[in-house]
Amino acid sequence: MRLIYRGKTKNVYEDGPYLIFYFKDSLLGFGDEEDTGGNEVIGERKGKGSAVLKQAEFFFKLLEEHGIKTHFVERLDERRARFLKAEKIPLEVIYRFKAYGSFLRRYCGWVEPLQELNIVEFTLKDDSLGDPLITEEAIERLGIASAEEIRQMKETTKKVAKILREFFSSKALDIIDFKLEFGRRERRLLVIDEISGDTMRVMRNGKLLSQEELLEVIG
Amino acid sequence: MRLIYRGKTKNVYEDGPYLIFYFKDSLLGFGDEEDTGGNEVIGERKGKGSAVLKQAEFFFKLLEEHGIKTHFVERLDERRARFLKAEKIPLEVIYRFKAYGSFLRRYCGWVEPLQELNIVEFTLKDDSLGDPLITEEAIERLGIASAEEIRQMKETTKKVAKILREFFSSKALDIIDFKLEFGRRERRLLVIDEISGDTMRVMRNGKLLSQEELLEVIG
Repeated sequence: MRLIYRGKTKNVYEDGPYLIFYFKDSLLGFGDEEDTGGNEVIGERKGKGSAVLKQAEFFFKLLEEHGIKTHFVERLDERRARFLKAEKIPLEVIYRFKAYGSFLRRYCGWVEPLQELNIVEFTLKDDSLGDPLITEEAIERLGIASAEEIRQMKETTKKVAKILREFFSSKALDIIDFKLEFGRRERRLLVIDEISGDTMRVMRNGKLLSQEELLEVIG
Repeated sequence: MRLIYRGKTKNVYEDGPYLIFYFKDSLLGFGDEEDTGGNEVIGERKGKGSAVLKQAEFFFKLLEEHGIKTHFVERLDERRARFLKAEKIPLEVIYRFKAYGSFLRRYCGWVEPLQELNIVEFTLKDDSLGDPLITEEAIERLGIASAEEIRQMKETTKKVAKILREFFSSKALDIIDFKLEFGRRERRLLVIDEISGDTMRVMRNGKLLSQEELLEVIG
């Protein structure tokens, strides 16, 4: 199998019509602090890759059960899973139930931590630019996605928000934010990349859940 | 008269029910380079304040002739003009005909200089945060403006874009971008602040016009 992408939290291999993701044990954060909103690898923790994969499998299946199309096919082992190939759209679609992380830093002084938001944001996926916020009009004009694709991504993200909020509230937990990525396959959009503790923030009584705690919840 | 605001390019005084703006000779830019998109004062040029005021008077009158409500009342002398008081909305509404300045820096590698855009962007007016881009949903949720005000600001900005494009194209010039600010007065929105060479970029044959060149155009 050919390695086609070496990422911060996973490597991606090509396997005929599929992709195989290998989930690494790397931790994301800023400086010393673990934060799934972080863009730097700040260390490793044994078992972290396998925990993320279990979460990804769980959430992709949860979405599929609710009629959301994703690229997930099957888990292969502790660290690897098979996905459909799709043409990646270079955007992160962020749903913010409450204000946290980069939103607080961006609008410091204009927003309270954990203030209710319920908004969708698009950022351009480009590490060298710091994943800048981008408006829907700019996405269209720069040829990154069509107006119809933008509409579909927003609609799907809101549906996923409802599914995740209901799931976590049934466990007496609070979801703060999550991000999705989308890809094109056979003229339709799929949710791609991963959905896990690395792509969402969940709180219990005002305290962020660790990967291990999140794993217990879905176990 | 009481000084109520000491700004980079103007001071503002209160005069009963009016505001009096005093236009300074300061130049905006980055480092050594003059750029109206800049947030730093990089020097002074004698006559600059008076040139900006002549431009502001010209453009406010042009907008009013086309039915756009502004806070402009009258010019008092070379450096001062009278305006209506309005409650400032802390946003800059930017119309980008073509890609330039902060848009090119923000999406470097994804956009060509002077690529056609025709988009409206909102930024939060907060120097200490670097005037960050903000989505319409976030403006509403942070209580900065209502959905109806956002709709009106966009609509007015598009109307102003049409007026300015027609004006400059009649002079064989190309307008690249401009920004507006809005204020509330008696339950309606007014275009406030100023409209001048300090708040727009205009080109002749691919070269940015200086304040003096712009003044010749409208003179």
